[in-house]
Amino acid sequence: MNARAPVGRLIGVGVGPGDPELITMKAVRLLKTADVIVHFAKNGAAGKARTIAAGYLRDGVTELALHYPLTTEVDKDCAAYRDAMSAFYNTSAAAIAGHLDAGRTVAVICEGDPLFYGSFMHLHVRLSTRYPSEVIAGVTGMSGAWTAAATPIAQGDDVFVVVPATLPEAELERRLADADAAVIMKIGRHLPKVRAALTRCGRLSRAIYVERATMGNAVMMPLAKKPDDVAPYFAIVLVPGWEHAP
Amino acid sequence: MNARAPVGRLIGVGVGPGDPELITMKAVRLLKTADVIVHFAKNGAAGKARTIAAGYLRDGVTELALHYPLTTEVDKDCAAYRDAMSAFYNTSAAAIAGHLDAGRTVAVICEGDPLFYGSFMHLHVRLSTRYPSEVIAGVTGMSGAWTAAATPIAQGDDVFVVVPATLPEAELERRLADADAAVIMKIGRHLPKVRAALTRCGRLSRAIYVERATMGNAVMMPLAKKPDDVAPYFAIVLVPGWEHAP
Repeated sequence: MNARAPVGRLIGVGVGPGDPELITMKAVRLLKTADVIVHFAKNGAAGKARTIAAGYLRDGVTELALHYPLTTEVDKDCAAYRDAMSAFYNTSAAAIAGHLDAGRTVAVICEGDPLFYGSFMHLHVRLSTRYPSEVIAGVTGMSGAWTAAATPIAQGDDVFVVVPATLPEAELERRLADADAAVIMKIGRHLPKVRAALTRCGRLSRAIYVERATMGNAVMMPLAKKPDDVAPYFAIVLVPGWEHAP
Repeated sequence: MNARAPVGRLIGVGVGPGDPELITMKAVRLLKTADVIVHFAKNGAAGKARTIAAGYLRDGVTELALHYPLTTEVDKDCAAYRDAMSAFYNTSAAAIAGHLDAGRTVAVICEGDPLFYGSFMHLHVRLSTRYPSEVIAGVTGMSGAWTAAATPIAQGDDVFVVVPATLPEAELERRLADADAAVIMKIGRHLPKVRAALTRCGRLSRAIYVERATMGNAVMMPLAKKPDDVAPYFAIVLVPGWEHAP
């Protein structure tokens, strides 16, 4: 009998918020040893993680692009969306499993931190019980944003909350009023609602609007001074806590 | 007249959650160029940031240790505590200003991310309006914890909250019941209260207890299986969200 081929290893690699230098030493080391680099892609284009990691990949390394079947602006509550995404993650996991079964080390590169609002976790839950796996933490997008804005976000016994702008206005208002510090994600077309919720709970004057932090083309301004309600989906709003610094 | 000496630069450098390899490329580059390395120290001992960064410091670089006047277990609401800490940060900022006035580049090394529950922000608010300054984002301690536990923490439209275990039990329970995903910090002597709050809101079975994540000697277990209520101040409890993954 032949010896069984060695099984490969799955690595989720956080590549940080945008600036290629905000990747960790460990991520760089593992990217250089990986046999296959996997990244998510939208609308046929390589994703932000691929752009961030470009300078750290070996020449000629095998790449596998996973193309999302849908954009992020569809109704996520509908069954068709959930079914399509589930099928996409199943197919993606199967493609990666093929490489792992062949004994290859597969690195899935992830913007920010892989286990914090990242697509990687859908692959992780499908594969990490069957294959040796590892995750490399990364600097989150929100850390990149408050650092680019040079804004201390939370301190001491502050309660800090991350809320999606997709929540109903009343709930957004309730949660923003109840937290010392907040990050509001997925702004996009929800900006008028976010502005209204912050105004109603008296916190608009502290809010900072951030687009594409740490990519070299960041847009940052007090939300109260933003002259329009046009925002990309990945814009975020920071509401710093720490109102009583010693 | 003599030309005025060039003013130095203040850099807050996040060194990540514990594993020295989880520091960013940018942090390593800046640590090698800094003239002075500043770190916080407790009870006379070098802090965790100094230990993490040890391998990246230039031989013979000037160091400045800032010794906290008090331990972290005192009553933070009392005026004496606030006065002592405020005086400590003022004195520390003045010492750093001396180096900056002499034209030196000063790097303050910070565990985790400098602007997320970090002592650095007390120096930042005192110095960044007077001197050129920069902050380097780092991987947070909580990212290190959920990654060490290989636990996806939040996804999709989850509401994620960071709460200190110092809150009253009823408030802890209310906030944990109201969030999809949570991190509870500063566990220490508050562990029985945290356990009770999680039990009352029906989430004890999902909670994971983590000590010293990514330091090579991490302790991780389901909180429900932890046989005692002994925990260090910096232990944390993770309550993963993402209960309805596609």
